[in-house]
Amino acid sequence: MINQNFLINGESMTKWYAGVEAGGTKFNCIVASGPEHILAEIRIPTTTPEETLPKVIHFFEQVKQENQIRLESTGLGFFGPICLDHESSHYGWITSTPKLAWRNTQVVHYFEEQLKIPAAFDTDVTAAALGEGRWGNAQGCRHFIYITIGTGIGGGIINEGKPLHGAIHPEVGHMFLPHDRSQDPFVGICPSHQDCWEGLASGPAIKTRWGQPAETLPANHPAWQLESDYIAYALGNLIVSFSPERIILGGGVMKIPGLIAQVRAKTVACLNGYVQNEKLLQETDQFIQLPGLGDRAGELGAIALAQTIS
Amino acid sequence: MINQNFLINGESMTKWYAGVEAGGTKFNCIVASGPEHILAEIRIPTTTPEETLPKVIHFFEQVKQENQIRLESTGLGFFGPICLDHESSHYGWITSTPKLAWRNTQVVHYFEEQLKIPAAFDTDVTAAALGEGRWGNAQGCRHFIYITIGTGIGGGIINEGKPLHGAIHPEVGHMFLPHDRSQDPFVGICPSHQDCWEGLASGPAIKTRWGQPAETLPANHPAWQLESDYIAYALGNLIVSFSPERIILGGGVMKIPGLIAQVRAKTVACLNGYVQNEKLLQETDQFIQLPGLGDRAGELGAIALAQTIS
Repeated sequence: MINQNFLINGESMTKWYAGVEAGGTKFNCIVASGPEHILAEIRIPTTTPEETLPKVIHFFEQVKQENQIRLESTGLGFFGPICLDHESSHYGWITSTPKLAWRNTQVVHYFEEQLKIPAAFDTDVTAAALGEGRWGNAQGCRHFIYITIGTGIGGGIINEGKPLHGAIHPEVGHMFLPHDRSQDPFVGICPSHQDCWEGLASGPAIKTRWGQPAETLPANHPAWQLESDYIAYALGNLIVSFSPERIILGGGVMKIPGLIAQVRAKTVACLNGYVQNEKLLQETDQFIQLPGLGDRAGELGAIALAQTIS
Repeated sequence: MINQNFLINGESMTKWYAGVEAGGTKFNCIVASGPEHILAEIRIPTTTPEETLPKVIHFFEQVKQENQIRLESTGLGFFGPICLDHESSHYGWITSTPKLAWRNTQVVHYFEEQLKIPAAFDTDVTAAALGEGRWGNAQGCRHFIYITIGTGIGGGIINEGKPLHGAIHPEVGHMFLPHDRSQDPFVGICPSHQDCWEGLASGPAIKTRWGQPAETLPANHPAWQLESDYIAYALGNLIVSFSPERIILGGGVMKIPGLIAQVRAKTVACLNGYVQNEKLLQETDQFIQLPGLGDRAGELGAIALAQTIS
């Protein structure tokens, strides 16, 4: 772990950063310098930009005042789609999101103006990937992927140590997968694609298919065989596409006991030795892991994101 | 197009490069400085390294001698899997290929030793991508993908103007796709995965499914509806994974008249507006294109690859 402490005039001084993990139901806000130096945290409901954003600013201002600190920069890990193109006039905006109140909301400029410090912007899943790379279970990896499987499914891709954005940014939760309707006649719940990965395997998809929430289904329920099949096919596709060194699987659904073990075995099985990645084949338990930062991967990821610009 | 001509002592002097596109049936070898300056070309059958490689060297030596030129560097675009990790002791090798005679063949060192010039090494499809980016239909794009659909299916990914390798290199032809067995009961021909993209949609897959070669099937044959379905799903997956600005579709199967138009329409249809990529939605004919370099994408790509190191 990088030492965030600097001795100035004989006193230990920690550099503090503001982090925001913005999701569809809540904003997780944190002031920290790393997982072992968390000064304050708060959850603020996601309602409208007019209501939510000022509450976030108020929290950071309050923490600064109460602790007599300054903040170095802000890391903003947001639900998408967002504009990450620095050459676009829409850089720093939430763009065509299905959350209508948030469509075309300027985020980066607002935070920079309110807090008077620079802000770094990326998707929530890319922030989580940066957090896992810095302090979690992807330390030392240059090519890795963070996936969240919960209310939705999304992924942050790190290639050569840097977030991969492409023209907009990846949306791997919407990939198309084998769907054997004789085994699983469920049509899927994605409003755009019906039976894409998210449509078949997100928390709400599991709940709709089986009529009860994922966390209430016992470990021996057939739900988990299907779920691990879909996740394994998707990881197979991510492996043949990005050739990662590691995949971190976060999100609520991955907390089901035993699920990750099934996913590991099935991912290796479906690739059937074609990809001669020794780390995948010989150290599968390391290759496919849960987040080292647990539920804080996203918000600490926002701190890691903030640290990329200061 | 970059001007390859330099005036020295009042005379025009072209810089010449050696290019090798190494495939399963033949090595396409070329001496050129670009698509408009091709000095010599040859096709050499792919038999064994002991037989094929000396013939390739002999060709380049002969062209040098006959034309009284020197070669600046060699670009080697090879069938995979290959080792691209400069820190590995196997850098420059063909590794676990199913072509047994070529398994664990040292390629880069051999060419550098024989020709006494530096050699750049990558997959055949990444070389083709570099060629299309430099002189073909992906000029000006920083994020794009070259796909070949022929004897096999493979893809070269360019991200931020550079080949994406990850830990080994992508093998996108082996991605898993929706396969509705009630529409298409064909089990697929991939020896590792049966009904992955290559197993369902490569030239040999089409031939096995319908009992006749792809090029003999008329344009209104149901083969092309299935084929465009699979390609569209695969391009959808590539788009949500890499967020490219453009996709170039090469290889023999893509020469079927009308196929690319079906692929364009179905790719947009299957993503169903979810990815708000204006280039995809409004300029689909540019977003999904055939190679500007035609059948020479691979060998001229090897020249573009050679030029990255000289």
